Amino acid sequence: MPDVIPSDSVGIVSPQVANFETPLTLTCGQTLASYQLIYETYGTLNADASNAVLICHALSGDHHAAGYHNAEDKKPGWWDSAIGPGKPIDTNHFFVISLNNLGGCGGSTGPTSINLVTGQAWESDFPIVTVEDWVESQARLADFLGIQTFAAIVGGSLGGMQALEWSIRFPDRLKSAVIIASAPKLSTQNIAFNEVARQSIRRDPDFFDGRYQTNRTVPTNGLGLARMLGHITYLSNDAMGEKFGRTMRHEQFQYNYDIEFEVESYLRYQGEAFTKRFDANSYMLMTKALDYFDPAAQNNNDLSATLKKAKCEFLLVSFSTDWRFSPERSEEIVNALIKAGKQVSYAKIEASEGHDAFLIPIPRYMSVLKTFLTRVSNSLSREES
Amino acid sequence: MPDVIPSDSVGIVSPQVANFETPLTLTCGQTLASYQLIYETYGTLNADASNAVLICHALSGDHHAAGYHNAEDKKPGWWDSAIGPGKPIDTNHFFVISLNNLGGCGGSTGPTSINLVTGQAWESDFPIVTVEDWVESQARLADFLGIQTFAAIVGGSLGGMQALEWSIRFPDRLKSAVIIASAPKLSTQNIAFNEVARQSIRRDPDFFDGRYQTNRTVPTNGLGLARMLGHITYLSNDAMGEKFGRTMRHEQFQYNYDIEFEVESYLRYQGEAFTKRFDANSYMLMTKALDYFDPAAQNNNDLSATLKKAKCEFLLVSFSTDWRFSPERSEEIVNALIKAGKQVSYAKIEASEGHDAFLIPIPRYMSVLKTFLTRVSNSLSREES
Repeated sequence: MPDVIPSDSVGIVSPQVANFETPLTLTCGQTLASYQLIYETYGTLNADASNAVLICHALSGDHHAAGYHNAEDKKPGWWDSAIGPGKPIDTNHFFVISLNNLGGCGGSTGPTSINLVTGQAWESDFPIVTVEDWVESQARLADFLGIQTFAAIVGGSLGGMQALEWSIRFPDRLKSAVIIASAPKLSTQNIAFNEVARQSIRRDPDFFDGRYQTNRTVPTNGLGLARMLGHITYLSNDAMGEKFGRTMRHEQFQYNYDIEFEVESYLRYQGEAFTKRFDANSYMLMTKALDYFDPAAQNNNDLSATLKKAKCEFLLVSFSTDWRFSPERSEEIVNALIKAGKQVSYAKIEASEGHDAFLIPIPRYMSVLKTFLTRVSNSLSREES
Repeated sequence: MPDVIPSDSVGIVSPQVANFETPLTLTCGQTLASYQLIYETYGTLNADASNAVLICHALSGDHHAAGYHNAEDKKPGWWDSAIGPGKPIDTNHFFVISLNNLGGCGGSTGPTSINLVTGQAWESDFPIVTVEDWVESQARLADFLGIQTFAAIVGGSLGGMQALEWSIRFPDRLKSAVIIASAPKLSTQNIAFNEVARQSIRRDPDFFDGRYQTNRTVPTNGLGLARMLGHITYLSNDAMGEKFGRTMRHEQFQYNYDIEFEVESYLRYQGEAFTKRFDANSYMLMTKALDYFDPAAQNNNDLSATLKKAKCEFLLVSFSTDWRFSPERSEEIVNALIKAGKQVSYAKIEASEGHDAFLIPIPRYMSVLKTFLTRVSNSLSREES
């Protein structure tokens, strides 16, 4: 934590846990008899509970989106740049909720949790969860918190898919959806990268078919590899070039398999660091949720037909050098929304950082977010008065 | 083999082996006391030995570029579409030589060969080889075959780098260089993908630090993973989409980690098939040769200064959807050649197949190759007469 908490920080925050005893039947057919969701809130819920904003996380995110957990925290939450007093997701106006999704490893029920039926950790027995399942569980969390309608549901990447699903599944429960650097479904190439990541994990002998906790191992080699590959797809070709170029580790080449180029060192470091904070079974689940998401499938691949149900206003944002979820993928959603006669704003942000840009406070991006959400906030005040 | 050998095939061919007893000092500083190169030839060398064309192979290629080894052969050589009587690399006019590079696993000296000093297989003790080393060894093969000057040196991808190096290192020994889907050096992203591929192999416990032959294992998991990843980068996003889309394996999702999408099956198959024909240590070496290649480095990153030495004529070809070596990378070479005052032709071919396009007989591509090489061939005849 910085010595003085900046005035635009939500400050010290504490995660809370909600327990759900109503069984949840998942898309895969299995039922979770009970489960818990860990979440954080920032800002204050207003009297008519109309100012709530839900933050949906991406592949490796969690509930800790803003602020610090304690004075020793070195880094704030993953989207601290966008959430806080005066920031685009303005906690002076909004009551912000950020949760860890089911199947995650941040404290919500997932593979590392105890399966109450067996008394053992779920590990790889934890059922496959989908974006639809997450949205269902998020709606229950909203019920628990007394929120009928969200002012906005906001997410980047896989988080954007959840916001999109909300607009279809619970059209009356959100005023607006903010979908950033996302896609209406994965491309073949996206699925292919996910499959290589999963195979990296599954082929690690320490994975033990997902039973590594039981076997007292951690599949660090495989999970690290998956993360290395992920990092290549999060950064643009240009961003990687600008950041590392062909910068060498030593003055001369060593002509061996140690690190010759700094980018190799970066990838190895990122891979290793990830294995200390993320669970391999959870990672597998997250990639599957991405693969399965395809809301147009229910209407013969006509996305606009699916989106007819939506009632909220939309903001779509893409980044010029994002090749994991390129601007064209956001534009598929924009065009389907227009065809379906919905209210949609769209901004393609010039940014060199690739997919990672959605986590970076690029001025025009922040300004687009702020303008849109200020309008949402103002319309709430008007309704109140 | 087809029932009847097509009239434009070079027919049944036999590899030959050349042994070299003059020590070869490599870029890395190590010396190979002796080595062998396996090669094939197609067509007939003319009286003044002026019609030779050298084919340089890419990452996983070998000496078997055209024709069939026997009547049971199911597939011809890897570039049969371009080499043969009447084809762009026309064996009615040219004497074509195709070799397996040092460090390969097709029959030239490499990690699977016996190190005569120890009497054991080299395995991971085989020294790192560079594009420069290959060109040096190819020049010795040319000497052995009585060829002072090549009419053309042709290569795609890593093969194109060899053709480019030839033009700089032995400017008097080639009339033309054909550089296809290549780059003057790897981008940071290219190096990053190579590093993930190498880590996939190194982290396979069956790799044993490259001593898997001694340990009677094969690192199929790691090498397969590396190849899966490679295949994603060889195909364009569009080509993958057209080929597989989101085609499902079963009528309904199974919600498990078996194959859900056909593209997953394709990748697993390609990965596994590769492990049956390629050596992991050789694969590691090939990726390193790619990483190190950077002829501009000797002139403060001024490629045109390096290319000043070249005397041959150049043809550069790129493919519109190739993102491994994008058209911009070929254009870097084209622009440097123009700046250096060299004679250069360039064609960017519209093709949906990505980097793989360089192996596909796309009509405009074949026509560009044929036109250029016919001119080369005609100029030889004029010199003769």
